[in-house]
Amino acid sequence: MHPGTAPDGSRAELRAAMAALPESGIVEVINRGREVPGLIPLWVGEGDLPTPPVIAEAAARALAEGHTFYTWQRGIPPLRDALARYLGRVHGAEVAPERIFVTASGMQAIMLTLQAVLDPGTELVTTAPIWPNVFSVLPILGAVPRFVPLERSDDGWRLDLDRLFAACGPRTRAVFLNAPGNPTGWMMPRADMAALRDFCRARGLWLIADEVYARIVYDAPAAPSFLEVCDPDERLIVINSFSKTWAMTGWRIGWVVAPAEFGQVYENLIQYNTSGVATFLQHAAVTAVEEGEPFVAALVERCRAGRDLVCARMAAWPRVRFARPEGAFYLFFSVAGEPDSRALALRLIEAAGVGLAPGTAFGPGGEGHLRLCFATSADRLTAALDRLAPVLA
Amino acid sequence: MHPGTAPDGSRAELRAAMAALPESGIVEVINRGREVPGLIPLWVGEGDLPTPPVIAEAAARALAEGHTFYTWQRGIPPLRDALARYLGRVHGAEVAPERIFVTASGMQAIMLTLQAVLDPGTELVTTAPIWPNVFSVLPILGAVPRFVPLERSDDGWRLDLDRLFAACGPRTRAVFLNAPGNPTGWMMPRADMAALRDFCRARGLWLIADEVYARIVYDAPAAPSFLEVCDPDERLIVINSFSKTWAMTGWRIGWVVAPAEFGQVYENLIQYNTSGVATFLQHAAVTAVEEGEPFVAALVERCRAGRDLVCARMAAWPRVRFARPEGAFYLFFSVAGEPDSRALALRLIEAAGVGLAPGTAFGPGGEGHLRLCFATSADRLTAALDRLAPVLA
Repeated sequence: MHPGTAPDGSRAELRAAMAALPESGIVEVINRGREVPGLIPLWVGEGDLPTPPVIAEAAARALAEGHTFYTWQRGIPPLRDALARYLGRVHGAEVAPERIFVTASGMQAIMLTLQAVLDPGTELVTTAPIWPNVFSVLPILGAVPRFVPLERSDDGWRLDLDRLFAACGPRTRAVFLNAPGNPTGWMMPRADMAALRDFCRARGLWLIADEVYARIVYDAPAAPSFLEVCDPDERLIVINSFSKTWAMTGWRIGWVVAPAEFGQVYENLIQYNTSGVATFLQHAAVTAVEEGEPFVAALVERCRAGRDLVCARMAAWPRVRFARPEGAFYLFFSVAGEPDSRALALRLIEAAGVGLAPGTAFGPGGEGHLRLCFATSADRLTAALDRLAPVLA
Repeated sequence: MHPGTAPDGSRAELRAAMAALPESGIVEVINRGREVPGLIPLWVGEGDLPTPPVIAEAAARALAEGHTFYTWQRGIPPLRDALARYLGRVHGAEVAPERIFVTASGMQAIMLTLQAVLDPGTELVTTAPIWPNVFSVLPILGAVPRFVPLERSDDGWRLDLDRLFAACGPRTRAVFLNAPGNPTGWMMPRADMAALRDFCRARGLWLIADEVYARIVYDAPAAPSFLEVCDPDERLIVINSFSKTWAMTGWRIGWVVAPAEFGQVYENLIQYNTSGVATFLQHAAVTAVEEGEPFVAALVERCRAGRDLVCARMAAWPRVRFARPEGAFYLFFSVAGEPDSRALALRLIEAAGVGLAPGTAFGPGGEGHLRLCFATSADRLTAALDRLAPVLA
């Protein structure tokens, strides 16, 4: 008899949904290739630059000053103030600090929001392909996704709003949009944002907008934000993160903009999930927001160069098809004759020494694609393309 | 018509359970008194010492070295290895690194564990008074607590195991123990641990042990751990944290020990809740575990002095009753003639300039008590007692 086994042989078990919870299809491939020597990793959503020293030094300074105690669950006031000014500057949106809540990652901003609005048995309507965590989190809450396809042409990805509206049924509580989109780079036109806002109002639905890539765009200083088209007490929740904009993926800090009336709910959810974000990290986040613009500008130029390099080269590969991304820092491309993208991603670890994310990870419509993150130096991208060409071209 | 209102006046609403989620009774009082000048705060579970410089410097060094990227969801291997050695050294328990998962706080270690084992409608059996987050987290999951009272005599707090066994019904999935206990300082005798282990085996129940205060004890190098009485694949999950032992409350790092077979489940839950803990913080955590023993010894002596000072003084106050705590760093005392501890705690902010946590926050059996954290210098404790005496003595 095993320890922990009752005389009748029964044992305590996990919730069935947790035992069946899918591993991230991205992480699965990474874990298989993490230790492969010389591999060029372009599978994950981060560049090759560490956090700018000015930000890292702010954290070190706050640490040395002893900011190591418990703090405000909603975020330290200077950070909430700085983010309010930032959103005003970038989006021209008036956002009161009382609407801003600091979270332990953009992922946590999503988790807390879904905890707040999704009862077991309810539905979240979202586009696909999309970042896997958006739908993989749902079984934890007993909720289910309904997917609306993004459609790819050579001109770009687009969303048929009528299909999205039709996907909203009686169990739907919220619509989740991620634009600029991971993995597609899709941008939502401002007119569509207003139409979706009106639809959500009319149907009593939450509108959840993941704007993590709002600053990584190539034809404007920022992507349009739902903050620009919605009112302050709209049933709108905007998800954001320090990860992409300021090369702080490893820090795990994000934020939420929500109606001020739900401040106590977010405070409670933060308390009962992780009990806040380290004060000394929040001081560094203030520095990111207030002194990080030169880095953001340089990052966008680096990404633009990466995009142009990768697109120019891969456009000549006959098996490869893609739409040139308008935002975010990924190329999401299909490869003719390669229907199993997970197998292909695993093969590329060995055969090419390049790490790409399999399209299967990104929900319906992802199969047959690979995701390549181009937020990397031209040298590394060129080396990766040289290795990929024999397999993919 | 408000924005976000349908023509029929309906609006998207929060889950009813989230709108009703209780604010932490501790945080409520803190938020009311946080800005009161000169207040001596003894309400929260942390001392007055910042994190030891050797630990803070390790984080600053890792930051300067550019450890700012995504990392292992289960925790960096050097930290899991260091924790395995630590548990062996402190508890004489053989714990493989594969059983250890790094979390974004002890609170998150609890949240992930409850997500893994509690379906909506199931029950968690736990003692009371207890740290409020243990039961306040349950409505998020649609689960409910069943409380078993700890009983106070002048000799100490004790648990009647038969009452705990009787509280476990058909919907019970897990038993949650916190020993040394917050707020009581209660310690569970090793023989009771073995009896509870046998009961959980026989009934197919999870055993969740919150051992965050295992090192803050006054008559041994460490409290007994369930790791010492359980087998490696026991249905046992041990919750721990860096917060108390190494004065890292503001860092938000904890860990879980669970059966190795559930590694993928914890990895997924970490991924979909916060996606890991900052690498540079984990490097500092390695330093805490490997070089932190002198600090732990000094902390325990500081707490012992605080305990002895507070107990000696308050024993002479006729309205006050308490049991001298054997572990943790709180005095949980009742005050005759003060049935409303929340009102009393709020009054003490103004009347005494001292912050204490109200007993109401800690569930059944807490009302009529206050919690005082004595992990503080003798000078501050003396000043606080001088201010409290006119109101409480």
